[in-house]
Amino acid sequence: MTETGGRIVLGPHQYGKAENRVVRIYRDTARHEIRDLNVSSCLRGAFDDAHTLGDQGSVLPTDSQKQTIYTYAKSHGDGSIEDYGLALARHFADEFEPVESARIEIEEYAWQRVPVGGSGHDHTWTRVGPEVRTAAVTVGGSGADRREWVIGGVKDLVILKSTGSEFAGFLTDPFTVLEPAYDRILATSLDARWRFATAPGDWDAAYHGIRAALVETFAMLHSKALQQTLFEMGKAALEAYPGLAEIRFSAPNKHHFAYDTGRFGVPNNGEVFHADDRPYGLIQASVLREGAPDAGIAWDAYTGAV
Amino acid sequence: MTETGGRIVLGPHQYGKAENRVVRIYRDTARHEIRDLNVSSCLRGAFDDAHTLGDQGSVLPTDSQKQTIYTYAKSHGDGSIEDYGLALARHFADEFEPVESARIEIEEYAWQRVPVGGSGHDHTWTRVGPEVRTAAVTVGGSGADRREWVIGGVKDLVILKSTGSEFAGFLTDPFTVLEPAYDRILATSLDARWRFATAPGDWDAAYHGIRAALVETFAMLHSKALQQTLFEMGKAALEAYPGLAEIRFSAPNKHHFAYDTGRFGVPNNGEVFHADDRPYGLIQASVLREGAPDAGIAWDAYTGAV
Amino acid sequence: MTETGGRIVLGPHQYGKAENRVVRIYRDTARHEIRDLNVSSCLRGAFDDAHTLGDQGSVLPTDSQKQTIYTYAKSHGDGSIEDYGLALARHFADEFEPVESARIEIEEYAWQRVPVGGSGHDHTWTRVGPEVRTAAVTVGGSGADRREWVIGGVKDLVILKSTGSEFAGFLTDPFTVLEPAYDRILATSLDARWRFATAPGDWDAAYHGIRAALVETFAMLHSKALQQTLFEMGKAALEAYPGLAEIRFSAPNKHHFAYDTGRFGVPNNGEVFHADDRPYGLIQASVLREGAPDAGIAWDAYTGAV
Amino acid sequence: MTETGGRIVLGPHQYGKAENRVVRIYRDTARHEIRDLNVSSCLRGAFDDAHTLGDQGSVLPTDSQKQTIYTYAKSHGDGSIEDYGLALARHFADEFEPVESARIEIEEYAWQRVPVGGSGHDHTWTRVGPEVRTAAVTVGGSGADRREWVIGGVKDLVILKSTGSEFAGFLTDPFTVLEPAYDRILATSLDARWRFATAPGDWDAAYHGIRAALVETFAMLHSKALQQTLFEMGKAALEAYPGLAEIRFSAPNKHHFAYDTGRFGVPNNGEVFHADDRPYGLIQASVLREGAPDAGIAWDAYTGAV
Repeated sequence: MTETGGRIVLGPHQYGKAENRVVRIYRDTARHEIRDLNVSSCLRGAFDDAHTLGDQGSVLPTDSQKQTIYTYAKSHGDGSIEDYGLALARHFADEFEPVESARIEIEEYAWQRVPVGGSGHDHTWTRVGPEVRTAAVTVGGSGADRREWVIGGVKDLVILKSTGSEFAGFLTDPFTVLEPAYDRILATSLDARWRFATAPGDWDAAYHGIRAALVETFAMLHSKALQQTLFEMGKAALEAYPGLAEIRFSAPNKHHFAYDTGRFGVPNNGEVFHADDRPYGLIQASVLREGAPDAGIAWDAYTGAV
Repeated sequence: MTETGGRIVLGPHQYGKAENRVVRIYRDTARHEIRDLNVSSCLRGAFDDAHTLGDQGSVLPTDSQKQTIYTYAKSHGDGSIEDYGLALARHFADEFEPVESARIEIEEYAWQRVPVGGSGHDHTWTRVGPEVRTAAVTVGGSGADRREWVIGGVKDLVILKSTGSEFAGFLTDPFTVLEPAYDRILATSLDARWRFATAPGDWDAAYHGIRAALVETFAMLHSKALQQTLFEMGKAALEAYPGLAEIRFSAPNKHHFAYDTGRFGVPNNGEVFHADDRPYGLIQASVLREGAPDAGIAWDAYTGAV
Repeated sequence: MTETGGRIVLGPHQYGKAENRVVRIYRDTARHEIRDLNVSSCLRGAFDDAHTLGDQGSVLPTDSQKQTIYTYAKSHGDGSIEDYGLALARHFADEFEPVESARIEIEEYAWQRVPVGGSGHDHTWTRVGPEVRTAAVTVGGSGADRREWVIGGVKDLVILKSTGSEFAGFLTDPFTVLEPAYDRILATSLDARWRFATAPGDWDAAYHGIRAALVETFAMLHSKALQQTLFEMGKAALEAYPGLAEIRFSAPNKHHFAYDTGRFGVPNNGEVFHADDRPYGLIQASVLREGAPDAGIAWDAYTGAV
Repeated sequence: MTETGGRIVLGPHQYGKAENRVVRIYRDTARHEIRDLNVSSCLRGAFDDAHTLGDQGSVLPTDSQKQTIYTYAKSHGDGSIEDYGLALARHFADEFEPVESARIEIEEYAWQRVPVGGSGHDHTWTRVGPEVRTAAVTVGGSGADRREWVIGGVKDLVILKSTGSEFAGFLTDPFTVLEPAYDRILATSLDARWRFATAPGDWDAAYHGIRAALVETFAMLHSKALQQTLFEMGKAALEAYPGLAEIRFSAPNKHHFAYDTGRFGVPNNGEVFHADDRPYGLIQASVLREGAPDAGIAWDAYTGAV
């Protein structure tokens, strides 16, 4: 490697307002609905002068983006996060000349109605988690060059099976002391994101259907490794939803170590485990549909949370 | 205030092993059960020499406590956390002469079966939260002086109602700029702990019944303040469960501020809110049954998490 | 244990505004100063009707408390957190008839000047942590019954020594598999709080002096257990500061396990460790000065963070 | 957008052991040194069969990677994290035929010696933060195709200036209500990562020098926007270190809002602020040296933390 005497220049850049905590109540009838969101906006484009000259003439303040996000929550915030994200991204891409593309990232926190007298209460809910639904919408170009990308997802989906998982037949080296396991706990905190090639008719239904395909496959498949489980989960989702172009997973192997109670005269047949914190295996993989439209800038991230 | 020339001496002290992450799988049949726990043990007693002399002769290592916690998970860890805590606390109080009292604090994380083909899968679950069930069991004394205290609870129970809440008629001072509110969001992340005077026949059923009394009251009561709501919630729980001696609440008022979209020509009739992080009102209150057995050391905390 | 038919009544209660994130810049000269604070106010007193009747007539809104906290930051926020807390607590205790006592809890985040050209910059700093200075001030009663309590403290003070620590000669039971250790890492994340019997002339100097006494003792003492180390640390602080009545510690034993690299032919003589997360030993102890003024309600907590 | 009937196939994938909490004590002399690390390993290559067939024959267990990480801490863990990372990445790239590239990500937590009697203690330290030094090393290919990339960095570097910052002259739209600011607090929690084109002689010295260039520029530059400040910071680092190819920033604009104490008759001339949590502006930018070697896979991330 050698040094260069090249000029120092501005490289890729983007900016926006991150983590607007929007709560949208739909109350046109006595039976209210709630959408609890964390919304981030991101603009890319001709903002070089703000960096190199300190000239803000092309910079829409992040405060203005915030006002827009909350105001659009009235008109577009009571439906799916994908539609709300599209409305915001189109606005920023359309209305501002310096903007080459706009990205909207949204987390949605789920709530369930409080059961009262056998049915759900009209306007009271409790939060359910830890899993969080996500969307990342990117809109770029104008006229014939207009393109739109939508990524849906779920994160922090903690899932565990207490049997039906093994790990054996692996490569060994001088540092290998791990014993093969033929019946172990398999657990992860799943982060999955899927790119749509075609918009489904109902974004919310698609979310629930894809999530169901993922967790059912995790449950039903006899696992030979988390790697295999992830691939089959992705395959199931893409088979069930032909409009999906690809799916990406990041999945920590949350280790549950069988505890040695035997030395105290108490046999432990896969019944008592220590759930360890760190380190953890971390498996990342994607499943693709051949021939799907290219991803373009769909995966170019902003906050890193979506 | 004046200085004193008094001797410097050891005051109250306690120690133990905190946050043992025990997972107990019940697998005697093909339909498994899971108990996912965070267990802390705490011993109080004649451990002065460890502090003042560095003499460990009376100190049961925290590692030994850990081994006990995991081993007892086999025999006592597949039922209620109150029973498991009682078994551990009795063990430590009974078996070790220096121990004057033992406290076991447990968090339980909930899981739900993955739905497959219309029913829950036998051995696969997803985590549900954020709410966490808690218990704190204290056992002290021996022979006729033996006493036992059991506290159950729930924490991080996030609950929200989108109407049916007001706050008006308050005291004002020169720093008061708050306007009265006649229809606002009321939301909290509830931490509730209840002390049993009498052991119920079924700890798990009692937990779910008390939780239901709390959330139903939150839903049904027209709220004039979070203070009033908490009192009525506690009253409902104590009325439903005569074996309860008292209940304690800590409840942040999670502020949801109506967003001023009107200045952009978009009316906001309680539909769009900013969910603020900090600061927050924090209300703490207890509801007691007169004549209940005294609390003794039931509330003397250890980790602060339970 | 038997059930009672007693009346259900309101028990102890308190409320306030928690976690006001106040930043106070002193800029009367070109060399600025910064105080970065997290301030919580808590009122106790005759607020029963708010709970039992929903009547807010005696309730000073938490929003009004917030306004006061920020406004007092101008007049009292550029000095020690103990003085600022006293000013606020006295205000709330003096001005409002229903208030029987007021508690102010403050965290202070430290900053250091950016070094430029050999000295610290006038108005630019970087944060230093993780340790946080704390204070909890309580003011109650009026006239001849007026009492004031001040607690100072530090939390999240992570300290480690790589030798000079042993743990041996402990009690054993059938669950004891721990081997005695004659040279181990001793590490904790210290939470220490000290109660003043007499106000020092300079609260800031007292903070730094007490902190120095604690960490020096941790460094210099050959440790036979964390219990012994804590006692000697507290003793050193009380000896150095005769105005202190007592000090309380909560100290996790952050386990560092020597890693078994020997099985790969690489000897490890106390050089390579795994820093484990959970579980951890948790030692809590207090050191008292005999004859010091009683603590009264000095330790009655609010947020639990201070 | 149209659906495709394409085959479903495995896409990019990688795996490893994340967050090994290695503490390395150098104790060959009485004056010990400490390196406190969080190490993650990541392998890319011919692991398709593990995913598609459940065949682990090419998969080195993450447990074996863990053993290697701790064992190498003895031989390579007492120096810079860049050198340690290179040793590990070369090992994984060299020794395993299926591995096409290996990535090592490391966080280093800083400690400072406890001052005792005017100098730093030999074997006792306190943690300093919140800032964390980072490195990400990637080694790929073999023989003539061998390539190595080293990225250094710092994250969670919280920096603030109390004057010398403005924001004015920005683009406005119907949602713009922000007023221009001519004297405001500028604060961020900086995440900076720099790619080396040439290895410096001393990685540790380079780290401290680059960090110094960044914070000095933040302090000295009169800021017209965080965008401009970031660009000048990056430029300063690249000018000072000709071996740097590029630097990337992610910087939240941590808003400090001047508090309206004026309505209570107390003027606030840039002295009292509310430090808000969310939302926040988020600025991301890079500064490049023209003609520098291409980045290749240097930025392909694993844990997202480095």
